[in-house]
Amino acid sequence: MTAARIARIQERLSQTDADAALISALPDIRWACGFSGSNALLLVRRDGAHFLTDGRYTTQAEQEVQGIPRHAAGSDLMGYAVAQGLLEGVRRLLYQADHLTCARLQAYQELLPDVEWVGVENWLCELTAVKDETALQAIRQAQAITEQVFEEILPLIRPGVTERELAAEIVYRHLRLGAERMAFEPIVASGPNSALPHARPTHRAFDVGDVVLLDFGCHVDGYASDMTRTVVIGPPSREVEQVYETVRAAQEAALAIARAGITAAELDQAARAVIEAAGWGEYFTHSLGHGVGLQVHEWPRIASGNEEVLPVGAVVTIEPGIYLPGRFGIRIEDLIVLKPDGHENLTRLPRTLLIL
Amino acid sequence: MTAARIARIQERLSQTDADAALISALPDIRWACGFSGSNALLLVRRDGAHFLTDGRYTTQAEQEVQGIPRHAAGSDLMGYAVAQGLLEGVRRLLYQADHLTCARLQAYQELLPDVEWVGVENWLCELTAVKDETALQAIRQAQAITEQVFEEILPLIRPGVTERELAAEIVYRHLRLGAERMAFEPIVASGPNSALPHARPTHRAFDVGDVVLLDFGCHVDGYASDMTRTVVIGPPSREVEQVYETVRAAQEAALAIARAGITAAELDQAARAVIEAAGWGEYFTHSLGHGVGLQVHEWPRIASGNEEVLPVGAVVTIEPGIYLPGRFGIRIEDLIVLKPDGHENLTRLPRTLLIL
Repeated sequence: MTAARIARIQERLSQTDADAALISALPDIRWACGFSGSNALLLVRRDGAHFLTDGRYTTQAEQEVQGIPRHAAGSDLMGYAVAQGLLEGVRRLLYQADHLTCARLQAYQELLPDVEWVGVENWLCELTAVKDETALQAIRQAQAITEQVFEEILPLIRPGVTERELAAEIVYRHLRLGAERMAFEPIVASGPNSALPHARPTHRAFDVGDVVLLDFGCHVDGYASDMTRTVVIGPPSREVEQVYETVRAAQEAALAIARAGITAAELDQAARAVIEAAGWGEYFTHSLGHGVGLQVHEWPRIASGNEEVLPVGAVVTIEPGIYLPGRFGIRIEDLIVLKPDGHENLTRLPRTLLIL
Repeated sequence: MTAARIARIQERLSQTDADAALISALPDIRWACGFSGSNALLLVRRDGAHFLTDGRYTTQAEQEVQGIPRHAAGSDLMGYAVAQGLLEGVRRLLYQADHLTCARLQAYQELLPDVEWVGVENWLCELTAVKDETALQAIRQAQAITEQVFEEILPLIRPGVTERELAAEIVYRHLRLGAERMAFEPIVASGPNSALPHARPTHRAFDVGDVVLLDFGCHVDGYASDMTRTVVIGPPSREVEQVYETVRAAQEAALAIARAGITAAELDQAARAVIEAAGWGEYFTHSLGHGVGLQVHEWPRIASGNEEVLPVGAVVTIEPGIYLPGRFGIRIEDLIVLKPDGHENLTRLPRTLLIL
């Protein structure tokens, strides 16, 4: 697989006037050659490729990276590459400007003063966004674990249990069910905390009448799941019902048009229009969704103003929300894979309001 | 506290010929004004300061950030700052070159073409490295949780239990005991896996005779703990004993000289010399330690070649290790706070080889 993916990067490279590309973003490196450690560089030349990591990862790289030369390069990966002549003959070198820090680029330029450095952004995202069957299988498995955990924890959402206690159960059960790690810290936001779209679990105990927003996901074989459900403890108020139905209708409006070939902005607008028409537009304070893969947040952003066309095979979230500060918030998030004529919803759980 | 810390940043600013500093690194923003969300900018001018975040964090920012103007700036924080005239009169602007990506800098430069952008590295590290009593209290609490978890899980390290199962218990118990989150994915590496310094937990089951390397930490009030212990199941081989004693002696040699005022390289060398003298120098494949604070890995790096002088009040790890590929690895890690005449060890657990 590594050889085929390196070939695809070389194909992209051949469409530029550069001699080589320096891949520094770890998810891209993992996509290209399977390495899952925290420090590496991948140098792709027109005539070959080199993988570099430091001494901590020598053995791991031997296990994970096949089919291209591996280098145990000490702590200064680029210094090693230069000293070993791996960049010999390279006059124009692409770098990932949306990943590399200014300081790192400057250090690299000092090592290679005669090279012309060409910054590119989102350079591999159209390759990495398209999930093959192996990637989809991992995402499905991660999503299945997440949904099983959701069902397991429902009986624990009762007055007196705290957000933090529930979050601990969510993490524990994911790991016990085979998740490698959580995709992010679980969001367990109850009562007024649910109005904070990115709340962290607190010591607040659940109470009757609470809205409880739950957003979590995990990684399996590197790939992420992501899901949000909002439930209520006891009968909901009329307003909670109205807001919930608006969010649900907004999500349905987006799902109704979700397919490859439309723009991210169109998809966002489908949901946003429903919320705006209901008068809550200013309380939908984030974009509709994001790509999911080796990173739980990756290209494409499903956001207003993003006119990029969504590709076949991309996995994205559809997660409208309405947040009434100091009172409550509702979000519903599904994970879908885009197809030429529609999409497949990877989320199996119902989207109706669950009253505990 | 925010006013005092902004004043300290302004004091550093006054030592430059810049008019303002753009703080973009989130741990620095948290240190300066308490914000713990995932998207913000802090603009520090000689005559004031501005905090900017996006709509997801409006309510959270109201709760966390006091004493400076807060701006709910939409998704384009810098565009907002420019439109609102927050950079009016700024001709030279410092930016964090070791944090900002090349692409982000370029976008900012296009917004402010007449400003001279001056990249700085590690600009606030000497301020943030010095832990006040509040920070130390949080680190002590995080470390106490980590050590309690270590003691709780020892009975679970027995043949048949897998690395992943133990990792799940480690995470769960940290969260149950009040940790906000883990500082990193726990390392539970048994048998030959312990020779991978940054191993991820696998489905391997422990066996009699295994070396088991355990490295974990958590966050409390933002601040991190970090600790490694290596244990054996059943009587250790002579070689395991020898390697363990060498690592322990290396750590003791470093602790014997650890104080503020020496260089990072001196501290690293004290441990490295012991391992080299024992003939295992090439198997100590990483640096001796790192700073710990709002980030579990922060300045200073305790590494050979780093001639920076260690400041009073810095919290750093001392973690020598020896890794024999395919066989086993040993690491022992303590957390210490540097004082003018020595250090205080924040790790209470014994460092002798624990035979389970």
